[in-house]
Amino acid sequence: MAQKKNRAAGAAKAKNGIRNKLFDFKREQILEVAERFFYHRGYQATTVDAIAEELGVTKPFIYYHFENKRDILLHLLERTMSRSLSVFDGVDVEKGPPVEILKELVQRFVLAVIETRVSTAMFWRDEKDLPINDKENIRKMKRDIDGGLARIIERGIESGCFKVNDPKMVSICIAGMISWIYTWYQSDGRCTPDEIAARMSEYILNMVGAH
Amino acid sequence: MAQKKNRAAGAAKAKNGIRNKLFDFKREQILEVAERFFYHRGYQATTVDAIAEELGVTKPFIYYHFENKRDILLHLLERTMSRSLSVFDGVDVEKGPPVEILKELVQRFVLAVIETRVSTAMFWRDEKDLPINDKENIRKMKRDIDGGLARIIERGIESGCFKVNDPKMVSICIAGMISWIYTWYQSDGRCTPDEIAARMSEYILNMVGAH
Repeated sequence: MAQKKNRAAGAAKAKNGIRNKLFDFKREQILEVAERFFYHRGYQATTVDAIAEELGVTKPFIYYHFENKRDILLHLLERTMSRSLSVFDGVDVEKGPPVEILKELVQRFVLAVIETRVSTAMFWRDEKDLPINDKENIRKMKRDIDGGLARIIERGIESGCFKVNDPKMVSICIAGMISWIYTWYQSDGRCTPDEIAARMSEYILNMVGAH
Repeated sequence: MAQKKNRAAGAAKAKNGIRNKLFDFKREQILEVAERFFYHRGYQATTVDAIAEELGVTKPFIYYHFENKRDILLHLLERTMSRSLSVFDGVDVEKGPPVEILKELVQRFVLAVIETRVSTAMFWRDEKDLPINDKENIRKMKRDIDGGLARIIERGIESGCFKVNDPKMVSICIAGMISWIYTWYQSDGRCTPDEIAARMSEYILNMVGAH
């Protein structure tokens, strides 16, 4: 509660004032160290002390910017999910040609997973540590992503562009194939992110029987 | 070392004698509780004490059957991987019709992942906690699985049954789509394991351009 008030005070009146920018900048620094530590050491094994020490700040500094360790994790996870949801930006799944839209979405998804692979790994590793309510918030974003995918596949089937059964299961399969990239992608690997995106969109268009 | 000697003594001369059977039975009981605890509480948060307490035994009882907590985890993970590798039993990826073989392998894989979903979840959550050498052992099994899949796809392309590029990436995509089941499968869900297996094999045959 006290921290909430602190944070409210931290978010000063001038929306674009330097105080707000500094506040956001400091939060970013904390998130960056936390993400690295959660990923390499695991969430349970990472302490707020360790994060503070790495940044050369005090523990109260951390608590001024985040309620607790869990709050930091939640911010990281929400950010990852928001990044995934952003693949729908400017795309209307209810309009336009299903083949092109699905192709575009798949390619954007692949790039989003590669970009956020560290926090995506954390998400699937640490989701059990999140309280139900917060989890629900994150699960909703996940449902929106799956729902958007399922919708474009449904439309493709309705319009005769796609020939496949069970759009809901197809969309889970697509999401799985793409999310899985975080387990195997290496920045010095055989294919560039764009090449992976191109191959996968080809595979997925085959999968839904696009023509 | 002392424990290793104990275990060697535990594995008595009569290969099918009751002593061996009891030894295996007790190990199974330990693995079962450990799997449940690792899954629900996480590996780090589970102690050997807690496992012993749940079974109503002493800590030395556990150490008679396993070297330490990590050894228990490794047994669970190896068992999961062996189960996945077993989908190749009786299947010769070098012979026979690629379409039928791929279909059969996919269906078996789906059932294996559903069956081992708890330990599969553990694998992807706790792999960072495993020492490199043991990890390598498990990674080898994973490579064998991916390699077997890639081989049947290669053969399908060579023989003109499949029309798809980059068999290696296709096989990773297939493995990903199927492994992902552990994140969403629910025993009271909409589809039975056999229905999921049937749908996925259909999607995957589409994906590789089978005809």
